Amino acid sequence: MKKLIFISILIISIIIYISYSQIQSASSESNQTDLKVSNETQECIDCHINYTPSIVEDWKQSRHSKMTITSALKQPVVERRISITELGEKNGEIVVGCYECHSLNPGKHKDNFEHFGQQINQIVTPNDCKSCHPQEVEEYSHSKKAYAVDILRKNPVYMQLVNATLTIPEEINGKLVCPEATEHTKNETCFACHGTEVKVDGTKIINSEIGEVEVPNLLNYPNTGVGRINPDSSLGSCTSCHPRHSFSIEIARKPETCGQCHLEPDVPAYNVYKESKHGNIYDSKKQNWNFNAVPWTAGKDFTAPTCAACHNSLIVNLNGDIVAKRTHNFGDRLWKRIFGLIYSHNQPKNGKTYEIKLKNGMPLPVSPDMSEYANDYLINSEEYANRQNEMKQVCKNCHTSGWIDGHFNKIEKTSAEADKMVLATTKLMVEYWNKNKNTSDNLFDDYTEKLWVKQWLYYASSVRYATAMSGPDYSSFKNGWYEMNSNYLKIYENVKKKK
Amino acid sequence: MKKLIFISILIISIIIYISYSQIQSASSESNQTDLKVSNETQECIDCHINYTPSIVEDWKQSRHSKMTITSALKQPVVERRISITELGEKNGEIVVGCYECHSLNPGKHKDNFEHFGQQINQIVTPNDCKSCHPQEVEEYSHSKKAYAVDILRKNPVYMQLVNATLTIPEEINGKLVCPEATEHTKNETCFACHGTEVKVDGTKIINSEIGEVEVPNLLNYPNTGVGRINPDSSLGSCTSCHPRHSFSIEIARKPETCGQCHLEPDVPAYNVYKESKHGNIYDSKKQNWNFNAVPWTAGKDFTAPTCAACHNSLIVNLNGDIVAKRTHNFGDRLWKRIFGLIYSHNQPKNGKTYEIKLKNGMPLPVSPDMSEYANDYLINSEEYANRQNEMKQVCKNCHTSGWIDGHFNKIEKTSAEADKMVLATTKLMVEYWNKNKNTSDNLFDDYTEKLWVKQWLYYASSVRYATAMSGPDYSSFKNGWYEMNSNYLKIYENVKKKK
Amino acid sequence: MKKLIFISILIISIIIYISYSQIQSASSESNQTDLKVSNETQECIDCHINYTPSIVEDWKQSRHSKMTITSALKQPVVERRISITELGEKNGEIVVGCYECHSLNPGKHKDNFEHFGQQINQIVTPNDCKSCHPQEVEEYSHSKKAYAVDILRKNPVYMQLVNATLTIPEEINGKLVCPEATEHTKNETCFACHGTEVKVDGTKIINSEIGEVEVPNLLNYPNTGVGRINPDSSLGSCTSCHPRHSFSIEIARKPETCGQCHLEPDVPAYNVYKESKHGNIYDSKKQNWNFNAVPWTAGKDFTAPTCAACHNSLIVNLNGDIVAKRTHNFGDRLWKRIFGLIYSHNQPKNGKTYEIKLKNGMPLPVSPDMSEYANDYLINSEEYANRQNEMKQVCKNCHTSGWIDGHFNKIEKTSAEADKMVLATTKLMVEYWNKNKNTSDNLFDDYTEKLWVKQWLYYASSVRYATAMSGPDYSSFKNGWYEMNSNYLKIYENVKKKK
Repeated sequence: MKKLIFISILIISIIIYISYSQIQSASSESNQTDLKVSNETQECIDCHINYTPSIVEDWKQSRHSKMTITSALKQPVVERRISITELGEKNGEIVVGCYECHSLNPGKHKDNFEHFGQQINQIVTPNDCKSCHPQEVEEYSHSKKAYAVDILRKNPVYMQLVNATLTIPEEINGKLVCPEATEHTKNETCFACHGTEVKVDGTKIINSEIGEVEVPNLLNYPNTGVGRINPDSSLGSCTSCHPRHSFSIEIARKPETCGQCHLEPDVPAYNVYKESKHGNIYDSKKQNWNFNAVPWTAGKDFTAPTCAACHNSLIVNLNGDIVAKRTHNFGDRLWKRIFGLIYSHNQPKNGKTYEIKLKNGMPLPVSPDMSEYANDYLINSEEYANRQNEMKQVCKNCHTSGWIDGHFNKIEKTSAEADKMVLATTKLMVEYWNKNKNTSDNLFDDYTEKLWVKQWLYYASSVRYATAMSGPDYSSFKNGWYEMNSNYLKIYENVKKKK
Repeated sequence: MKKLIFISILIISIIIYISYSQIQSASSESNQTDLKVSNETQECIDCHINYTPSIVEDWKQSRHSKMTITSALKQPVVERRISITELGEKNGEIVVGCYECHSLNPGKHKDNFEHFGQQINQIVTPNDCKSCHPQEVEEYSHSKKAYAVDILRKNPVYMQLVNATLTIPEEINGKLVCPEATEHTKNETCFACHGTEVKVDGTKIINSEIGEVEVPNLLNYPNTGVGRINPDSSLGSCTSCHPRHSFSIEIARKPETCGQCHLEPDVPAYNVYKESKHGNIYDSKKQNWNFNAVPWTAGKDFTAPTCAACHNSLIVNLNGDIVAKRTHNFGDRLWKRIFGLIYSHNQPKNGKTYEIKLKNGMPLPVSPDMSEYANDYLINSEEYANRQNEMKQVCKNCHTSGWIDGHFNKIEKTSAEADKMVLATTKLMVEYWNKNKNTSDNLFDDYTEKLWVKQWLYYASSVRYATAMSGPDYSSFKNGWYEMNSNYLKIYENVKKKK
Repeated sequence: MKKLIFISILIISIIIYISYSQIQSASSESNQTDLKVSNETQECIDCHINYTPSIVEDWKQSRHSKMTITSALKQPVVERRISITELGEKNGEIVVGCYECHSLNPGKHKDNFEHFGQQINQIVTPNDCKSCHPQEVEEYSHSKKAYAVDILRKNPVYMQLVNATLTIPEEINGKLVCPEATEHTKNETCFACHGTEVKVDGTKIINSEIGEVEVPNLLNYPNTGVGRINPDSSLGSCTSCHPRHSFSIEIARKPETCGQCHLEPDVPAYNVYKESKHGNIYDSKKQNWNFNAVPWTAGKDFTAPTCAACHNSLIVNLNGDIVAKRTHNFGDRLWKRIFGLIYSHNQPKNGKTYEIKLKNGMPLPVSPDMSEYANDYLINSEEYANRQNEMKQVCKNCHTSGWIDGHFNKIEKTSAEADKMVLATTKLMVEYWNKNKNTSDNLFDDYTEKLWVKQWLYYASSVRYATAMSGPDYSSFKNGWYEMNSNYLKIYENVKKKK
């Protein structure tokens, strides 16, 4: 009898334990309480726990506070979140704390400063993250995101659009003139997403609770744009998607993150996703999904893709086979560029799109009359097919080949139809410009020109995104064909009005 | 003492069991692990587990994989999700697997093909689902959704709008002409929601991992529009709302599902809901609701209605009384049609709205001058009152009669005011057409005509939906009165400009 | 051995108890089952459990049903949700039920009526809530929200806009005239958010399941606008944010609640928040946050602010220090009014903005030519700095001083730039009005005037909100600079067209 009782208790205890620990693990990551923090980091914490307590707490919730590099390296390769393979000269016995990141490469950091006895960089940059995540940073450095600042700045056509948009026209001698946009407004609009060039202009004094503190005086900051030019000259801002001191992979995998920049009217990726069946399932079921697992198992960790699933996460299927490799070059699985400039075209070979030139030197991937593509700078048809195929592997988890092929064919056809509409409108504009010899050199600073911009930047883009991700309203009434057709008629009226 | 210990353990065990099972049931449905799968379905699974593993997993998460028809029939009627009352010739000992659905009515299915020794239909249709869900399919067959393709295709006025929207105008002899829209574009826009006519054009060869596979070559596919015309001639696509192999009732009950098609600018039901207090409570509390319960108990399973609660779910109150019967005819609880065409009017008697004719043969429910309603095709005032009353029963769970009556009266008044504005604008258009004898026969292919369409299709609709579901911004600044008034003034200018 | 077993069971029991109660407390508030309900409330419940069962259930889920005033007063001050400090003549042994709220101040309530032997107020008002929450009501009474009805009604300029928006123009003698808007339409639009004046027009008979019931006949109802004028003459509707019989603090703290009224195009606070990193983190992590805790601990209960965190909740940091005091005057932590009328300006001193006058009597905070600010009615620079500083305390939980200062400086600069654009556009309008002496006295009833309204009400507002809360698309393509510039050019065309 006593034995029975003992066994009963044992069984009960085990059940309780399992039940309890499941609940625990569902709500938080494991607590490895005896992990060591470096002395320097401890100093940071001791002070910042008082002055910015939630930053400290955010880090405590992060994986960085719960892992040493040594323990990270012990994991199977497919489950690793770091891409170094050896410890090197790093201290593998401590967790990754404040000092471990904010002290790297001081020689390169113009924002390095002495802060209560330590040399600290104010901004941690991709070049610092590279210390443990070299592959991710390398991949990112080939993406359009990394060059997002120069993509605008170094393209005179795009800068015409930037300047014509962000300015208050002035009437001089009876003629409207657009002054150049201010740096401030550019930073608050285009470069808020693209990134600013963060510069260090000496130091400034902050009056804090513990007296005056001298810190670097950063210009064009705060900013977390994806192509931010950092004080160490590196490009990008990992915190854009992995915010902030929790460095969350969960947040990066959720579409709301991408949706901060990729939204209507110009890039309605997020909006179309929300309208799609994928987005519908995400909204309904996400609370049951595991956004933290590495690798990310389709059909188990998630049952409909988010942006990250299709575009960059390491995806395995239910059998554990790798379906798609992780990439931080966000164009890697893309074949066609449907954000038409001003027509759809094969993806650029690399992220430096400001290098793209037509034969006459015009910095565009497709000529305005669609007669020429800047093929030297665009991927060829073989690479095009390869990338389509890569993406299809993700689809195949849940869709049959017939469905997938049908879907991919639609993207081709719809893009071509939208291009045709843009071409028809551009031809109207040529007539318009011929009739208005006295318009300014800027292609985008006249009301009818603004309508034309909407035709390709908003409406044709919207139609293509709507098809690519199946959110048909964005192809119809919401910035779709209804607006494209209506806008064409309006421009036609304006053109014909002119003599 | 031993007795005491024994009793203690017993009590503890019971507590644990209850606690544990509550947690379990909250997170997943029960696992009946010894359920039998048919041999045919097992064959499907054995192969597809490798090629489309997530489809298999999706099904495993579904109720279909966890129930036999026999066990479903044993449930109390009010809790049943099938509407057959007898097993008939079906095998009641197996779960509902791949083969059980994809093999039905092969004689009717033009998409039936031989697939590794089995005769398979590629698409499962409402006529197949009818095998277990006859009442749902019967109800659906009376809804406007079922006829959503012909509602457009067979109405020449609507097809004028479709063609004038989805086309690139061409200038011929100095006059703008609109070519007919392509089938492709129609499928990607209007018919993406309304449904396409899926046709079988022989077979095609798919190159898969296990070699070449011959499958039916489906045209106008993929599509999951609500009125899809299937290869067995049946109408509809159950997966539109109950996606995909999980056949989820949870997803169907969440407003994001309806919002895939019912969204601004033309049918802003979802947007208004999101802005409403109902939507606000849904967003805040949904994680605590039970979206899977049948029947669905107001005040317990949910504390604010979603689209499904008002329009089609089987609702009981906290005392277990039936408040509203389940219906898959989505118009059943609707009295007024507030999606004005071009005015609000009593709901059509049945889903075949393309049969509606005015005395002069015009295929509209209300004449353009509001002098005539096609009353033969619209429900009468008695039925109108009945349906209002049916809806009010749902409201009464949480609102007093005074509140409800006040709300319903508002819908009447606002609809009438919006109609009055559309009439005033239409009168302007009559003046416009009288002045422009040389406009084309198409009512919708001129810029001013497009503005007029927005007046009723976007703005007046928006005002009515805003009132019906209490999202006042859609009645004010967002596609509401501000736009209606402004648009009127613009059209007025255009009319007066013409001589 | 028996002792060991006993201890084991004890330990197990404790573990179970903790585990179980944690789960319970996570999913629902504690059940104090022996709490007493007053006899009067019990009578309400006994009947309404049949007729409006979900109202009863909603209340059961509320804190009101689970607390007595006595137990509430026993809590530490910082954790209290009531602001009385003594019981007074209230019964401290009963929970706060139907009768406790619906019977207060009957002499003041024109909607008081005899209902099955009890004297009941149909509407519970802030003046009734004041019975336990005097401080909250007092604070609210100074806010702009409380005066939201008169803010429109008593400002002749704003009423011009209301009337010009909500009306169907009529052509009389070849000239367009705008009749005054109907009360009904005003209630369904502007006053749906601002609040209606609820009046009692005798009684009416409701036909209910238990026969005829006589109730007050309320006009301009239902409405839950924030400035509602109640039948007891009090101002406001607590249920706007704390809906309905659950009086939820959770819902009030979620941005969707504020977003019911504060949304694009005119006040895009919610939309900008959704696009911001704060909103992004909220969307990703909210399921792990505690929206019910008082005080609300930054970094623990939530890791990114919602509207309530910045604007009115009682916030403490992780060390328990109060970072921001609770306030129900929603302007308390605001310094600049970025919802430009028609320019940005210092916040009004109190909520009665209809008292604001320029020297010439014009009821505007800034003169149309920006030469004069109604400084007597606006906070001075000292108070401006104080309020900025108060807000910065919230930011400091997670951001460094450098970041915060940079952010706050941006708000100043961007507001000034948007103001400059509005001024330039207004100057165009002056030219327009000079050329069109025969426009009506209403400033907002002509198409070009409508474009001008959009310039400040939509676009300039959008640009300022976008900067204040970091959602850059609302500063760029979505109602931002692109529209501002484009709209300027359109107005310019219209002005120059006129002779």
